[in-house]
Amino acid sequence: MRNIILSLSYDGTAYRGWQSQVGGNTVQDIITEAVFKITGEKVCVTGCGRTDAGVHAKVYAANFKTDSAIPESKFVNALNHYLPDDICIKAAMRGSDSFNSRYDCIKKTYTYNIFNSTVPDPFLRKYALRYPAQLNLAAMREAAAHFVGKHDFAAVHSLGTPVSTTVRTLYDCTVSECEQPDIVQISMCADGFLYNMARSIVGTLLYVSEGKLAPSDIPKILTDGIRQNAGPTAPAHGLFLSALTYPDFSL
Amino acid sequence: MRNIILSLSYDGTAYRGWQSQVGGNTVQDIITEAVFKITGEKVCVTGCGRTDAGVHAKVYAANFKTDSAIPESKFVNALNHYLPDDICIKAAMRGSDSFNSRYDCIKKTYTYNIFNSTVPDPFLRKYALRYPAQLNLAAMREAAAHFVGKHDFAAVHSLGTPVSTTVRTLYDCTVSECEQPDIVQISMCADGFLYNMARSIVGTLLYVSEGKLAPSDIPKILTDGIRQNAGPTAPAHGLFLSALTYPDFSL
Repeated sequence: MRNIILSLSYDGTAYRGWQSQVGGNTVQDIITEAVFKITGEKVCVTGCGRTDAGVHAKVYAANFKTDSAIPESKFVNALNHYLPDDICIKAAMRGSDSFNSRYDCIKKTYTYNIFNSTVPDPFLRKYALRYPAQLNLAAMREAAAHFVGKHDFAAVHSLGTPVSTTVRTLYDCTVSECEQPDIVQISMCADGFLYNMARSIVGTLLYVSEGKLAPSDIPKILTDGIRQNAGPTAPAHGLFLSALTYPDFSL
Repeated sequence: MRNIILSLSYDGTAYRGWQSQVGGNTVQDIITEAVFKITGEKVCVTGCGRTDAGVHAKVYAANFKTDSAIPESKFVNALNHYLPDDICIKAAMRGSDSFNSRYDCIKKTYTYNIFNSTVPDPFLRKYALRYPAQLNLAAMREAAAHFVGKHDFAAVHSLGTPVSTTVRTLYDCTVSECEQPDIVQISMCADGFLYNMARSIVGTLLYVSEGKLAPSDIPKILTDGIRQNAGPTAPAHGLFLSALTYPDFSL
């Protein structure tokens, strides 16, 4: 039995996130079905993490075990043949027997796109939050720095599947202006993200920009751990899973 | 009566091009309907040119005459309110009485995106032609240079609405590698484009890359003016109207 690792990318617009759920229409369901069409096997496709409904993945890692004799390299075209064109397999490789896309992931980076413009753009409507007011980038950066480090992030997560701990280490949280005009990106790199954590950090940084919170409020918000004290959860469509680090490779 | 100039942008994926036609679902139809909802007037919205079904416009200029008292600046939000989110008004201004988006346009630039990759990408599927084979950029550039100048472009246009002349001046035709990995852009700037001309030039450059035509074949192809001697019409979804020049402004 081989353990096949898939590197993939998806446009999350049409899906209810990665994780299989009642009612279907998740990326995991669709990839599982495509693997079945090729191998005839009902495999369990393990993903590197749950992405929320509507969140995109520039990169994503998944793995499944198979008895089929199909060479690793053939899975790319064979799966893409059966997948809709908003889910694309980029590469397939053989993993060690014990490799697990979720548990072996060391670092994840999420990037949130803000389109800071008073007028809409047809090409960004699905991939960036349009935010018409002027952004206070200095205040947002000051606040972002307070999130960096090992903290209990309960204040910026939503209740979902129970987790053993809400402590995570955020290695990096940067607010940068892009070459593309009017695009501000918030990049967050951590050892793991809680449910809605990336979007709640973004919503909190926007509250800081609006003066509803001060950068210096962040440490107490984290310490108190009360969700209502932080900013709102920013919309899903601006968020991309953008980098992954495993012991032996990065995507 | 005021002459209102609109600067707009649209994702052409869902539309049958700019120009109104039997069966509807054109950008012109939809903007005309939105103007009617705001002004109650059945105006004629003149566009800077016909874009083919599926072609995108990063920039586009249109104008219409109105007796309504709505200030120019109010048209942006009012029209966007009624327009679908793949057609966006960027600005509205008052034009001179004689301004005509089509006839007053001095230069147009079209940009064609080629995604040169063996694997697909979910975010480029609607905005770039995926081309898996290696591109011979040197040969494409040599061929592109032969298109530049004042020529009869009958060999690279499709029959459509009759035109008085098939002579156009191509000021520039460049093939460039982008910062974005695996994207090659073909940019074409001319005083005007015939039906399918931009896409046929791209198809011909791809034939040159494939060795089906030599760069030195281009002058004779233009002189002979026989469509079948040039390359095929490249797919619409890779093409963007990307710049416009008028006597008093540029988009």
